[in-house]
Amino acid sequence: MLESFKESEILSKDQYTQELNKLRTQLIDAQYEFKKYKRPMIVILTGLDGAGKGELVNFMADIMDTRLIETSTFWQETDEERERPYYFRYWNAMPPGGKLGIFFNGWYDRTIRRALESNDDPEAFARGLEEAADVEKMLAQDGTVIVKIWAHITKKEQKKRHDKLIKKGKQSEEITKRALWYFSKYEKITECAEAAYKATHNEFAPWEVIDCTDRRTREIHFLRVILDNMNRALKGNMPKSRTENLSGLSFPDVLGSLKQHKETDQKTYRKELDELIDEIKPLAWEAYQKCISTMIVFEGWDAAGKGGCIRRLLRAFDMRLSKVTSIAAPTSEELSRHYLWRFWRQVPRAGHIAIFDRSWYGRVLVERLENITPPADWFRGYSEINSFEKHLSDRGVHLVKFFLHITDDEQLERFKERQEIPWKQHKITDEDWRNREKNAEYKDAYNEMFFKTSTKYSPWKIIPANDKKGARMEVLKHIKGSLQKVLNK
Amino acid sequence: MLESFKESEILSKDQYTQELNKLRTQLIDAQYEFKKYKRPMIVILTGLDGAGKGELVNFMADIMDTRLIETSTFWQETDEERERPYYFRYWNAMPPGGKLGIFFNGWYDRTIRRALESNDDPEAFARGLEEAADVEKMLAQDGTVIVKIWAHITKKEQKKRHDKLIKKGKQSEEITKRALWYFSKYEKITECAEAAYKATHNEFAPWEVIDCTDRRTREIHFLRVILDNMNRALKGNMPKSRTENLSGLSFPDVLGSLKQHKETDQKTYRKELDELIDEIKPLAWEAYQKCISTMIVFEGWDAAGKGGCIRRLLRAFDMRLSKVTSIAAPTSEELSRHYLWRFWRQVPRAGHIAIFDRSWYGRVLVERLENITPPADWFRGYSEINSFEKHLSDRGVHLVKFFLHITDDEQLERFKERQEIPWKQHKITDEDWRNREKNAEYKDAYNEMFFKTSTKYSPWKIIPANDKKGARMEVLKHIKGSLQKVLNK
Repeated sequence: MLESFKESEILSKDQYTQELNKLRTQLIDAQYEFKKYKRPMIVILTGLDGAGKGELVNFMADIMDTRLIETSTFWQETDEERERPYYFRYWNAMPPGGKLGIFFNGWYDRTIRRALESNDDPEAFARGLEEAADVEKMLAQDGTVIVKIWAHITKKEQKKRHDKLIKKGKQSEEITKRALWYFSKYEKITECAEAAYKATHNEFAPWEVIDCTDRRTREIHFLRVILDNMNRALKGNMPKSRTENLSGLSFPDVLGSLKQHKETDQKTYRKELDELIDEIKPLAWEAYQKCISTMIVFEGWDAAGKGGCIRRLLRAFDMRLSKVTSIAAPTSEELSRHYLWRFWRQVPRAGHIAIFDRSWYGRVLVERLENITPPADWFRGYSEINSFEKHLSDRGVHLVKFFLHITDDEQLERFKERQEIPWKQHKITDEDWRNREKNAEYKDAYNEMFFKTSTKYSPWKIIPANDKKGARMEVLKHIKGSLQKVLNK
Repeated sequence: MLESFKESEILSKDQYTQELNKLRTQLIDAQYEFKKYKRPMIVILTGLDGAGKGELVNFMADIMDTRLIETSTFWQETDEERERPYYFRYWNAMPPGGKLGIFFNGWYDRTIRRALESNDDPEAFARGLEEAADVEKMLAQDGTVIVKIWAHITKKEQKKRHDKLIKKGKQSEEITKRALWYFSKYEKITECAEAAYKATHNEFAPWEVIDCTDRRTREIHFLRVILDNMNRALKGNMPKSRTENLSGLSFPDVLGSLKQHKETDQKTYRKELDELIDEIKPLAWEAYQKCISTMIVFEGWDAAGKGGCIRRLLRAFDMRLSKVTSIAAPTSEELSRHYLWRFWRQVPRAGHIAIFDRSWYGRVLVERLENITPPADWFRGYSEINSFEKHLSDRGVHLVKFFLHITDDEQLERFKERQEIPWKQHKITDEDWRNREKNAEYKDAYNEMFFKTSTKYSPWKIIPANDKKGARMEVLKHIKGSLQKVLNK
């Protein structure tokens, strides 16, 4: 999310005025509709020091009906609060049904602050996030609309604003000191925000990152987020369970921000590829001797070059050690059991290597997009897959997951080539062209998959694959490194 | 479950024949219906050594159509299996849709065996159970019908059977040695079974305890369990989510097996009560000084004597330290927020004591039985309550939960008394009589509540309360002990 943060386009004054006038009416209307809603809406507004959170809320007060808004800041805990469990103050601040509550920093405050103060209690940090997610789920299931905003600026911009304030002499020494401290922690704060996003961005309480560089842009964005989320409740398409109506929740566009490489020249490729293969061979045998099994997954766009990568890999893996499984539509035998059954059967013996050309991820990709599996079932797939992979990983199976990414144009070119060259024609069917029409939907499904199934024990490795040679080399390099790691080299 | 295990009544030969003939037809019919069902049914058959599990399955083979049954034993792991993660063998044994699979011991085998062999890795034991529950949920959500059977006999019976076999000289020395070892572990095994039941008895895969003392009784019981669970799937009332249709799942009858005391004599009562109060007073002040807050919950039948207990407690707790909150129907202020909101507001300051005359458990009691709250919502209550209490307990709040139990007859007598004695008439209303008609349903709800919300950090203390004086003393004794514990005395 923040790793791919770019400053947004700046709104012109005209655009701004036009947008604002439209939003003003819509927001007031929505507020009056929302008044009848039996649960409150909570906006957790947090983000970087100096991003202008306070100004945003003051601005909002000019636009909306403040009688239906309750703003809560959570500064120093009072005696009353300190003597009770942490969430006491938040429960007490809960607005009644039909009202909008703005929670400055909200319940992420302490977790993040503690992580900044004492660097190394990752467990407490994770527990803090888990607790937040727990409370949010509890409230959301009860109908409360929650949206969490991260107000972001670049480090450069933060410095600029801070210098300006000092120059004006407007700040007390203490506040200056505090601001400098926060400034020195910019990277760490951003890292914490990333982690919080990753752990708690879900259909119960989504996160929204607002670029706060430009005043007009951030104001419009902020009002828009409030309006959209209020409407989410009013239109009654609040997700009733984890499995229904997931629209409206977006995930970081990992693929969109991936850079493709230039083409590798043939000579370097030949040389380096052979070297890599020679290096991997003994590693695979050593893993065999040490009884470490490997499972390698290949996913990616049609024509992204999965087959080519697998063929190169097989040059490094002895045939007695490795097996490739291509996943097509399930047989009736397979259909009469849980979808993971057929993959369990392919779990390799100790020391062996199983390569999957497409995999159990079909559940949340093709089965999802072709309506083969109802939403309630494929949606459960994310956690089922995580649990499956955790089970394997806990038992010492070495897991590697590749995603080969090619751009839309590159895919078109490869499709055309396949159609024109006689010996490649078997590789292209009408179905491929039909799939291509769904590329935008696939992209969303891929991004959701990366977000939900990149785990510590089994992360995704995304390979830019417009350059076939480069992609193959990167795959082999990654396998080499990964084998070295599990062999403690 | 096993703590209240009593040998079942023995079926006469006539009863047995009659039952069996009925079941025979029903089972065959059910099997042929089930053949069309797209998912399998799995019976995990486990229990005590010598209970006669093998005989049960052989008997079943005589009654049912074996072409639709697959029996799997999981003895020594093969090489093939040992080299793969633990669940590999179970996934491989998965029967196809429409068939019944009998899994001897099933995936509980290793977890329990390891607990017997090495006494002290409670974490690994808990993880093993969690994993089992995880797999069961995954399968059940996909439509697989799962039922888990614990075949039980008393220690005495086990010994008798074993001696008989030795006398007959039918067993090899090795098997005799193994049987003796298992015999020596009777208590530990029973304890493990209890824990497994507690952790994994749920709507996805319920447990059923079969008393295996008498042959006829166990055979009928076994067939009945299979028929009922097959029908559960056929009637389509498989719980589709955790929140729908929870009928058919029963919980241990804690209240039914509770013994009431004889009446305490007045003199002992007066003396001991005063002593207890004098002992509790300084403990409460010490807790105050150490900033340990206490929350005490009273639940129980109408007229069980909650008020009387609370009044005695208040003699020990200084008024400046304690506050009693009586929970009635929520106000509109409260209704417009999450139901836990009003309890959060009553969390006491450091060192103070909050007593609740009825509590947040109303969510899964009166709100459930009076249809005030839809099933999807009250059902979520169990985990919400556990999470609420965990949060309090993690922050050092001292939690005590009492349930006062009186028998049905005793309640009737107290109701009548209240109606007859003028100064007690305010205590009884028509509503009390109406509630009484629902006593059987309340009992089920109480048993489910004990099962789901007795946690390590916040267990229930159930007080037999037919004897008012005894109940009050037991409440005070428990508070005294509990305070001593949190004060490390």
